[in-house]
Amino acid sequence: MKGKLFYVGLILTFALSAVAHYMHLNATLQFVISAIAIIFVAGFLGKATESVAHYAGERMGGFLNATFGNAAELIIAIFLVKDGMFEVVKASLTGSIIGNLLLVLGLSIFAGGLKFKEQSFNVKLASHNSSLMILGVIALFIPAIFAGGLTTKETSSMSIIVAVLLVAAYLLWLLFSMVTHKEILSEEAIEHGEAPWSKSMSIMFLVLATVMVAFTSEWLVGTLEEVTHKFGLSELFVGAFLIAIIGNAAEHSAAVMMAMKNKMGAAVEIAIGSSLQIALFVAPVLIIASFFMGGTPMNIVFTTYELAAIGVAVFITKSITQDGSTNWYEGLLLLVVYIILGVVFFLV
Amino acid sequence: MKGKLFYVGLILTFALSAVAHYMHLNATLQFVISAIAIIFVAGFLGKATESVAHYAGERMGGFLNATFGNAAELIIAIFLVKDGMFEVVKASLTGSIIGNLLLVLGLSIFAGGLKFKEQSFNVKLASHNSSLMILGVIALFIPAIFAGGLTTKETSSMSIIVAVLLVAAYLLWLLFSMVTHKEILSEEAIEHGEAPWSKSMSIMFLVLATVMVAFTSEWLVGTLEEVTHKFGLSELFVGAFLIAIIGNAAEHSAAVMMAMKNKMGAAVEIAIGSSLQIALFVAPVLIIASFFMGGTPMNIVFTTYELAAIGVAVFITKSITQDGSTNWYEGLLLLVVYIILGVVFFLV
Amino acid sequence: MKGKLFYVGLILTFALSAVAHYMHLNATLQFVISAIAIIFVAGFLGKATESVAHYAGERMGGFLNATFGNAAELIIAIFLVKDGMFEVVKASLTGSIIGNLLLVLGLSIFAGGLKFKEQSFNVKLASHNSSLMILGVIALFIPAIFAGGLTTKETSSMSIIVAVLLVAAYLLWLLFSMVTHKEILSEEAIEHGEAPWSKSMSIMFLVLATVMVAFTSEWLVGTLEEVTHKFGLSELFVGAFLIAIIGNAAEHSAAVMMAMKNKMGAAVEIAIGSSLQIALFVAPVLIIASFFMGGTPMNIVFTTYELAAIGVAVFITKSITQDGSTNWYEGLLLLVVYIILGVVFFLV
Repeated sequence: MKGKLFYVGLILTFALSAVAHYMHLNATLQFVISAIAIIFVAGFLGKATESVAHYAGERMGGFLNATFGNAAELIIAIFLVKDGMFEVVKASLTGSIIGNLLLVLGLSIFAGGLKFKEQSFNVKLASHNSSLMILGVIALFIPAIFAGGLTTKETSSMSIIVAVLLVAAYLLWLLFSMVTHKEILSEEAIEHGEAPWSKSMSIMFLVLATVMVAFTSEWLVGTLEEVTHKFGLSELFVGAFLIAIIGNAAEHSAAVMMAMKNKMGAAVEIAIGSSLQIALFVAPVLIIASFFMGGTPMNIVFTTYELAAIGVAVFITKSITQDGSTNWYEGLLLLVVYIILGVVFFLV
Repeated sequence: MKGKLFYVGLILTFALSAVAHYMHLNATLQFVISAIAIIFVAGFLGKATESVAHYAGERMGGFLNATFGNAAELIIAIFLVKDGMFEVVKASLTGSIIGNLLLVLGLSIFAGGLKFKEQSFNVKLASHNSSLMILGVIALFIPAIFAGGLTTKETSSMSIIVAVLLVAAYLLWLLFSMVTHKEILSEEAIEHGEAPWSKSMSIMFLVLATVMVAFTSEWLVGTLEEVTHKFGLSELFVGAFLIAIIGNAAEHSAAVMMAMKNKMGAAVEIAIGSSLQIALFVAPVLIIASFFMGGTPMNIVFTTYELAAIGVAVFITKSITQDGSTNWYEGLLLLVVYIILGVVFFLV
Repeated sequence: MKGKLFYVGLILTFALSAVAHYMHLNATLQFVISAIAIIFVAGFLGKATESVAHYAGERMGGFLNATFGNAAELIIAIFLVKDGMFEVVKASLTGSIIGNLLLVLGLSIFAGGLKFKEQSFNVKLASHNSSLMILGVIALFIPAIFAGGLTTKETSSMSIIVAVLLVAAYLLWLLFSMVTHKEILSEEAIEHGEAPWSKSMSIMFLVLATVMVAFTSEWLVGTLEEVTHKFGLSELFVGAFLIAIIGNAAEHSAAVMMAMKNKMGAAVEIAIGSSLQIALFVAPVLIIASFFMGGTPMNIVFTTYELAAIGVAVFITKSITQDGSTNWYEGLLLLVVYIILGVVFFLV
């Protein structure tokens, strides 16, 4: 996705999806075009964020990357929240988490493992990440288990309190990993390279990219209901697989590329880090945001299916990454679990 | 809690709670005073147990500490069992387990982590403890899962059999850790220091402390129902948070102090060891005792909420302690999970 | 079970169970005799498989052992599937898994631990095995969680797809462990010794043993229903404990013998490897086979009780084996969990 061709694709697909939207073309066509456009604009947003992060200095840059790395997904989700499509939002958050842990990480480990017999990475980092993932899982499971005994109002209170606690824990994690214990992370950093643009250009492009993501997200979300019905797909499947794969395409290619360069630590960091961001930052921010949007706020109660998928994904990822080394078969195991989940979500 | 001031507090609060009880003062007042008194008399019981243990020789002393370390909680619980308040008993056992794993250990790791960048301890010990914790979790989960298919009588049989198996496993654990493999534990022992009293004084004080704990426990339990109703609190919340925190105050301060002296192994041993004692010794002993008290015996079936809380606490503690090193953020994670559980138990 | 005495027992019990069957003796008597006969013929089948494997060369031999190691159980199960006794089949698969993980491994670790203070084995292998076990658990849990939302037909589709994925994952595991990464396994191989017979004799004995297992299995299964009713036992208990112990007797003695020779790696490999074979190969092969037998095919949906037992067994085994060393107390913990499960399955 480098070079001129990327920008040609970006402009072309964005323009085409605008045309499709405003000329009220066939919904399926609109969906497909804006889906492709989102892959490009999300990639553009990622580049612009990194470029701004480059000028912001190491610490602030790390913070920017850590909080805006899933900006595209956050924006798509905000449009879904605005339209009251809470079920699709939660399904897509679930899909992002399992997509990063099983598909992105699975492909990275598998592809890297075909090239290198054994790949290793910093166990310390993996161990910290897995403790955080467990916090994320706990914070999603507890409300679901207790929600049965609560009124709607109590569920709302619980949701907002847990959301605030999670955001606080995430911000303190940034403090921990970037200030007090930053040497744990530094060992195998994700390569950022040179900034492609000047400082002012970078900021302008960041704004532009955000606007483009917002537009294409709105167009995509607008066609969702019609497409879902047409093909007889469930909201759960569309949110958890289609939208999640579209929204995470940039991470997918970046992580796989890192793994094939034998930088498995960076690949693990992208995949697990992105999942953590979804569970501990994006999800609670959406819940908090929905409180300020009027109407019924979104609660933190996920369905049993979603929780099972997340729990399973975290459990097998933890088991596979905890020894700090990977091989092709471990990547395959992650992919098999992803396919099994895909099959059951499709059938339900 | 050292020196003369401690004894002044002990005598004063014990006397005041006796006055409050026999003069039938306001229930809330009685509750508050006897709660404070219990913190003192539990501390006194702990001192007396250690002093007797000192004279009993290393092996017998370790055994005394290991079985009577939670004597205060056991006595409170026996009064609750006698009054048939099985739900409060189970809630308080749950609260003790999660309080030790999340609050005590969390505070210790957090406070120690603020002072020392990284604290480490014997991984071997942590690994053994976590296997035992898993036995405890299994022994509580299995009956709950299968109880749906059993009659009341079968549930009783199952409860007593599982309870006997657990006590046997606990006693064999003492054999393992104090006789056949004692060198595993010896590396970072909890410091006991000099005995404060002569041998006969120690035994007399042990008897005295036990009697004082018994009285204050009865006074506290007597006011429980009224206070619970007055403030609209659920028995679950009172048992799992209020009673558990009161009954464990001594462990709390001891563990945090050890952590701040950079003896993290001792802090972990107090917190996890105390949880193990509750799950594998106190809980089954109460079930066995209830069989000899007449009336309906207490069964081993905990509620879904309690099991979720225990499972979650064990899972995150295991994840955080298994690498044998801790930092402030890991302590914070444990505290966040404790607060989340506190919020949902309060709301339910 | 070596030497002439073994063959005397083999021929005697086989002949007796044939007599008991064709003379329509008392069902309990038939059951007991054919159960003892199965222990002998399964042992004979194991010997013949190993002998053929010896001549087949290292790689093909490993493959034979890995796929036909549980041939006796597979044959018993196929007769149960043919008779439509799906519940007993699933219970016996459950029983095989927990029997291998808790009883076989527990006895091995306990017996070995009484003789040797500490026994160790290749952690790498244990870690790989535990990731595979988790795949097995996931592949059994996911369908059960989602089955509630599916029609019978969808459940069938899901079952066959998951079964095919599991067999594929198992075959690729053989590729991984015997071709691309075989040095991981080679460190502590299971001793096979000399082949007892010539090549053609071995093949003939393999065929003979298979036929004998098939006959005795059919005789045993034929009496099952009557015996179950007579003693008021549930199909769940009979399948999960009686049949599983009978079908796995050979593994039991082999693993315990290895442990007592201080070859704990081989004992772990037999016990965990056999469980993996059941979950990832025998179970899915039975589901696929049932599709070609006509009538309602068997689905992959296990009961909550079975899943709880499997989950618990995998969880505690993983916890105990992940540090690569064992002692008598860890073996005892596994046995305690096995007894607890036995009690609750008996009561349900």
